[in-house]
Amino acid sequence: MDTPAPAPAPALESVEGTLRRARGAAPAFAAASRRDRAAALLATADALDAERDALVDLARHETHYGTAILEGELERTTQQLRFFGEVILDGAYLERATDGGAVDVHRVLVPLGIVAVFGSSNFPFAYGVAGGDTASALAAGCAVVVKEHPSHPRTCSAVLAILRAALVTARFDADVVTMVRGFDAGVELVTATDVRAVGFTGSTRGGRALHDLAASRPAPIPFYGELGSLNPVVVTALAAQERAGELGALLASSALQRAGQMCTKPGVILVAEGDAGDAIAQVMVDEFDSSAPVRLLNEAVREQFVAGTGALAALSGVVVRGGALSEGGGKSDPVRPVLFEVSAAEFGDVELDEVFGPTSLILRYSDVTEASAEAFARVLSSSVGRLVWNGPTTGLTVGWATHHGGGYPSSTSIHSSVGATAIRRWLRPLSYQGVPEALLPDDLRADERSTRTAARR
Amino acid sequence: MDTPAPAPAPALESVEGTLRRARGAAPAFAAASRRDRAAALLATADALDAERDALVDLARHETHYGTAILEGELERTTQQLRFFGEVILDGAYLERATDGGAVDVHRVLVPLGIVAVFGSSNFPFAYGVAGGDTASALAAGCAVVVKEHPSHPRTCSAVLAILRAALVTARFDADVVTMVRGFDAGVELVTATDVRAVGFTGSTRGGRALHDLAASRPAPIPFYGELGSLNPVVVTALAAQERAGELGALLASSALQRAGQMCTKPGVILVAEGDAGDAIAQVMVDEFDSSAPVRLLNEAVREQFVAGTGALAALSGVVVRGGALSEGGGKSDPVRPVLFEVSAAEFGDVELDEVFGPTSLILRYSDVTEASAEAFARVLSSSVGRLVWNGPTTGLTVGWATHHGGGYPSSTSIHSSVGATAIRRWLRPLSYQGVPEALLPDDLRADERSTRTAARR
Repeated sequence: MDTPAPAPAPALESVEGTLRRARGAAPAFAAASRRDRAAALLATADALDAERDALVDLARHETHYGTAILEGELERTTQQLRFFGEVILDGAYLERATDGGAVDVHRVLVPLGIVAVFGSSNFPFAYGVAGGDTASALAAGCAVVVKEHPSHPRTCSAVLAILRAALVTARFDADVVTMVRGFDAGVELVTATDVRAVGFTGSTRGGRALHDLAASRPAPIPFYGELGSLNPVVVTALAAQERAGELGALLASSALQRAGQMCTKPGVILVAEGDAGDAIAQVMVDEFDSSAPVRLLNEAVREQFVAGTGALAALSGVVVRGGALSEGGGKSDPVRPVLFEVSAAEFGDVELDEVFGPTSLILRYSDVTEASAEAFARVLSSSVGRLVWNGPTTGLTVGWATHHGGGYPSSTSIHSSVGATAIRRWLRPLSYQGVPEALLPDDLRADERSTRTAARR
Repeated sequence: MDTPAPAPAPALESVEGTLRRARGAAPAFAAASRRDRAAALLATADALDAERDALVDLARHETHYGTAILEGELERTTQQLRFFGEVILDGAYLERATDGGAVDVHRVLVPLGIVAVFGSSNFPFAYGVAGGDTASALAAGCAVVVKEHPSHPRTCSAVLAILRAALVTARFDADVVTMVRGFDAGVELVTATDVRAVGFTGSTRGGRALHDLAASRPAPIPFYGELGSLNPVVVTALAAQERAGELGALLASSALQRAGQMCTKPGVILVAEGDAGDAIAQVMVDEFDSSAPVRLLNEAVREQFVAGTGALAALSGVVVRGGALSEGGGKSDPVRPVLFEVSAAEFGDVELDEVFGPTSLILRYSDVTEASAEAFARVLSSSVGRLVWNGPTTGLTVGWATHHGGGYPSSTSIHSSVGATAIRRWLRPLSYQGVPEALLPDDLRADERSTRTAARR
């Protein structure tokens, strides 16, 4: 696990030069058949699989995650690329509709053009250069300019090279995917006229700044940000009585997975007061106490973890129950996992922010009459984007029915980057009124019409 | 056509009080069955139809439109309400999807909550209090707070009263739809925590200000604005040769319909240089010359028309060909329709803004080799939201395949307020992971499952 000084990542072009290349590649890619785009996604998945060991090794050095975690993530990444191939071959995502009348009106979704992708620090593969945003944007027919992540630049470069080679194998221009580097380049990308939408996974602070930039452009563009989330978990009194040991272990493991650096981490866990609740809390305390110090993704994450846990500890009524606070230490020193507890009565209605990293807060509630699972489900479903019953919030699969992210700051838009409908973010509707068959796009030609008519409503 | 001083519209409550009422009414409406919501839409349509003459008379005084235009618009409005009833009974808009696995994951779209609607000046019915935004939001299950339009307050109040009564007839709380008045109330609405999205039809200037407010909230909300649009029309050299008289008359009538106060008005018309193009231009000139002065919707529209046409006339190479410039005059004096012409060579790449009102610009092009209909269709489809072949841009029908609005400022978002998919703007995805059948919303229950499975992809 010793980290050698990483070799410098290859030089990258200016934003202007990069966008020039993207402009050159985008039209042919947008006009390509879905079959050909799906082939490019499959070729990318195969090429990433073939380079698994080298990629995992690179990412292991840059992220401090273990091999098994990264192998699992890379597998998820290639599955995701193949899945978006399925999504576009299926074709329902095009939302084709036809109205007859004096002339036919056909509606279909078409690609936006060039889009920008800011990958995450915590999923170097699955939400990185060839991750969910890129895969869905390529599936949609958009050219992608990636902003390199400063905390794993070599992983970014390696994935980029594989992705660009796979595009060429699939007979596309490599410049369908390009990359820029640095904070200023990111800002330039979000404000560039050529960029038509932005996908971002990261901190609330950074994401909000870019969101505001995108909204303030002369012609605003959609900003799809996935920022912070608390992922509240409720343990009913009955469940605590029946399964304290199992649930305590499950929740601790969910909170500590990837050193707590998951957007689906349970940040606040509601547990009833009384003996059964005490038992669950104790299991979690034991797990946190016995959990080794961990190195976080980068300095900024470490700083925010130390500051965030410090701020939580300072709140009235909040006590450290498991593990320990991390204070001071070097920029890349490991941190201690830490578990907090507070009683709901004392806590009042303090607004909690996400603290990224190995920490969670147990909130003890006393009003057992209100604590039925049904009541919680009703309350939560009014504000969350995903309601999980009898299971951990971590461990999301990417499928047709997946939705990730609830209200702001969990998501800055209604749409999310995980699951089939992520493709929706890179498309716009276009209606053809009375346009002759020969001039309709391939997706609206007669041989597609039976699908279209069937899918019409 | 003489306009008596309108009786004052009834007093309205504060934004805070109005939102309190909306909060009271919203949950039951969101939870109601689609059948019951569709019944409320139909009841509203029937009630508006029953009051047709009184409504048209009110709107005639407040907008200066003629009776036939307003009768047609009211009919379109009630058709639209009934259409959204169909859309929700159909159910495909829910985007239900299910993934099997260790546990089932179901995805469905659910209503956002309370939304704000700023209706247009130019469509007092079809994009007013019970217009496209309100109809689609009610269909989605959202409570609606309307901002009264200052240029037709009595029409707003009359429609509101009918709509609220129809809601009660359909056994809903009248406060599912409420209204606020005044500029400050509008600003308060867009920044209110309870408001989850905004629909706006109006000027680029006002819309942009509200867009920026919505984006700058602590938790930003979607702002669906339909602002200005040029609606470029291309007449190919061949069409000009074959049908100069017919096309000239059609285009002039399209530009002058509703005194040019349509978001689909042809604002710039590309016509080839040479004899055939001259003939089309002359037909349009004759139509503009013989067109009577008209009263515009309100003072602001008049001011902007006078300023906008004045600015166009001052551009290098632009000449007044038909009608005449309107200068000075009283705040509510009629204006003269005016037709401009310029040669493309002289015009260069000046960026045109929409000028609302009875005016258009003929742009004479010479590069006939580039002027095939196919070439134009290709170029235009990269930036517009609707491509009309061999027909005027005005006269949009509301259907399953309708899309209205292209890039900014035509639309501030990817979605538009016209057509079935307008409902999409008031919904958010919610995924249920492993949730027991009994706790799923009605739309995801077993008796709906066959629909869902069929619609899955």
